[in-house]
Amino acid sequence: MKYVRHARCVRCGAIYEAVPALTTCRCGGILDIEYDYEAIRADFSPADLDGCRDYSMWRYRPFLPVEDGSPPTPLRVGWSPLYRADRLARTLGLRTLYLKDDGQNPTSSLKDRASAMAVVKAREAGADTIACSSTGNAASSLAGNAAAAGFHTYIFVPARAPKGKVAQLMIFGAAVITVDGSYEDTFALSKEAIDRWGWYNRNAAINPYLSEGKKTVTLEIMEQLHWQVPDYIALSVGDGCTIAGAWKGLKDLCAAGFIDRLPRLISVQAEGCCPLNRAIQTGEPWRPMEENTLADSIAVGVPRNADKALAAIRESRGLAVTVSDEEILDAMRLLGRTQGIFGEPAGVTGTAGIKKALELGLIDPDSTVVSVVTGNGLKDVQSGIRAAGEPMLVPPDMDALLSAFAQRRIAP
Amino acid sequence: MKYVRHARCVRCGAIYEAVPALTTCRCGGILDIEYDYEAIRADFSPADLDGCRDYSMWRYRPFLPVEDGSPPTPLRVGWSPLYRADRLARTLGLRTLYLKDDGQNPTSSLKDRASAMAVVKAREAGADTIACSSTGNAASSLAGNAAAAGFHTYIFVPARAPKGKVAQLMIFGAAVITVDGSYEDTFALSKEAIDRWGWYNRNAAINPYLSEGKKTVTLEIMEQLHWQVPDYIALSVGDGCTIAGAWKGLKDLCAAGFIDRLPRLISVQAEGCCPLNRAIQTGEPWRPMEENTLADSIAVGVPRNADKALAAIRESRGLAVTVSDEEILDAMRLLGRTQGIFGEPAGVTGTAGIKKALELGLIDPDSTVVSVVTGNGLKDVQSGIRAAGEPMLVPPDMDALLSAFAQRRIAP
Repeated sequence: MKYVRHARCVRCGAIYEAVPALTTCRCGGILDIEYDYEAIRADFSPADLDGCRDYSMWRYRPFLPVEDGSPPTPLRVGWSPLYRADRLARTLGLRTLYLKDDGQNPTSSLKDRASAMAVVKAREAGADTIACSSTGNAASSLAGNAAAAGFHTYIFVPARAPKGKVAQLMIFGAAVITVDGSYEDTFALSKEAIDRWGWYNRNAAINPYLSEGKKTVTLEIMEQLHWQVPDYIALSVGDGCTIAGAWKGLKDLCAAGFIDRLPRLISVQAEGCCPLNRAIQTGEPWRPMEENTLADSIAVGVPRNADKALAAIRESRGLAVTVSDEEILDAMRLLGRTQGIFGEPAGVTGTAGIKKALELGLIDPDSTVVSVVTGNGLKDVQSGIRAAGEPMLVPPDMDALLSAFAQRRIAP
Repeated sequence: MKYVRHARCVRCGAIYEAVPALTTCRCGGILDIEYDYEAIRADFSPADLDGCRDYSMWRYRPFLPVEDGSPPTPLRVGWSPLYRADRLARTLGLRTLYLKDDGQNPTSSLKDRASAMAVVKAREAGADTIACSSTGNAASSLAGNAAAAGFHTYIFVPARAPKGKVAQLMIFGAAVITVDGSYEDTFALSKEAIDRWGWYNRNAAINPYLSEGKKTVTLEIMEQLHWQVPDYIALSVGDGCTIAGAWKGLKDLCAAGFIDRLPRLISVQAEGCCPLNRAIQTGEPWRPMEENTLADSIAVGVPRNADKALAAIRESRGLAVTVSDEEILDAMRLLGRTQGIFGEPAGVTGTAGIKKALELGLIDPDSTVVSVVTGNGLKDVQSGIRAAGEPMLVPPDMDALLSAFAQRRIAP
């Protein structure tokens, strides 16, 4: 780890050696990995990436806290497409919109970036078992990435996790514990079990390396934009780890001279569960909320990475935008119909937030905005059907088809 | 279309100009696109691909029947990962196995390759509406790729199509007609409607360009293997279009001097619906069968592309291997647990066939085999749960967890 200096507590500033099994600070604060940016700047530039044919998150090795000899993970994680979304932009009345479809990762969510990192660090730590609690995507991505690399996994999910995510877990051979309770209950039981059995800990707010995996999403966005910094990057926010990781990637690029300014973040949460946005909007400390939204991946009433997430939003002079479940379902339809992207509810929440921010006049319609679609809609088919409805059913007969069309006022 | 010569009927040999809205021969035979391979060989070589940064199916333009000025499709289709699958190979007792995970395409199946081609050809034909019938994946891939490019779609699916595929269709804004009947009934009604309203036809056995899209899967496999030809390529087979397209890609590469020999194909069908394999095994003409398998994507009792598919299997001195639904479910578990890949039932049928062929002594364990995983398991979560079971449910309490572990003999 040539460029890694150490880990620093974001709360008390204490410094730790960056050993593979690092967790939180003695004070309870979350740790942040710090690099020697001058050395990165001296050794590594955008031109080096032009010749790199590794189209995965591991193309950014100098920015990642892994040993030089650590092999990459078996599944191809990262380098998801960044689409220029002119059809949706026109619909929203926005000049320039890009969509980063992170549902194209191996287990169909952005969480693969953190799980691939967890697998590498678990191997460096000499572990053979990895565990986590998750609302679903971190779980299935850990199970898939770990299975491919030969690790055992113990996974704790709340009972509300959608069937698609649970099916993935079971197929990947994880020991899955469905907890009859909230995400908060699930997290607490996983912590107790991890402490008891000494498994490698993939809880993203506990293990400081996981944000470093997640940050590759913004490293990629910036490379795909040829290092031209957009005005805003919109992300759905639950635990806070993803937006914190995205911000870390941007700051790293700035510190190493790859970009010369920073975009503003748009933190989008669901009305029914928005403790972080409420803290931003009121200026008060965050307080727990109920988990009352269909966007299960971001239904996190007690965000584990509040410190880093709030700092990221504030440092970026970011916006906190809150959307209803109806607005989330509307964004699912919009993304599907205009751009052919099927996102899960939390996956499209960032896009719902951009629409809302435009309606509220919070962002200039001439802005350039990037929205990260964090997970594939196939993970939660029920919400897809709820957003888009059921198809017409007809017997195999032309007259029946004609009358079904007439009834629905379809005129081919 | 500098390198396209014409289309030729595979049944009667009649030749047609390669206009965009080409369908079948007057004799009812399927058409095949023929190229000027000498010209391709003179202008284009593997070295040209080394410098190509377009990591999508469109990197193979000289091998594709599209106008020079036609823009690529909006969604990033192709360049799915090819994994060396040592863990699964060991489990199967096979020396070298590669897995091509085509479930990583934008709408999560190989069919995106054909649908992207359909969108380009529909645009060249001046159409604004595209239609197809499909067991599900062709439908959802057409709906997604067409939505992103601004086309209307009419899609006919049999009532048995899994919920995930139907949810995709609805989100992508297609006019979806669920036909209360078999795939055969669905196909017939779609044909009548397409004839009546003059929509652009994306039925893969009717439109000769679609195999040309599908063939990019073998173009990619060969480039990813650095043009080293494997002994076998295994594919699940329904309508016959995918295996025909895969074979066309290999023959094109051979004719253009990119590879110097051809692999043998392994055609894998489900016991409950195997008209093509039965024809290969008995040497008699194919006869319709019932559609009696959980692998819905290949449950095709009346294969529309039998001529090309049977020719491909025979020309390659291929194997026809038939597997039970139980063997398909077993392959789902195997791929998930050893390699972190979640395939839908038809998506893993090729892998099930490799296992069966090894057990029957049909292939040498020292062979190099490529298996194409044609679709993502998230499309059919019910089958995933059926393959892998339900997770344990516990209250948020350590004692409850301990007794759940004890009951299942899990010793962390």
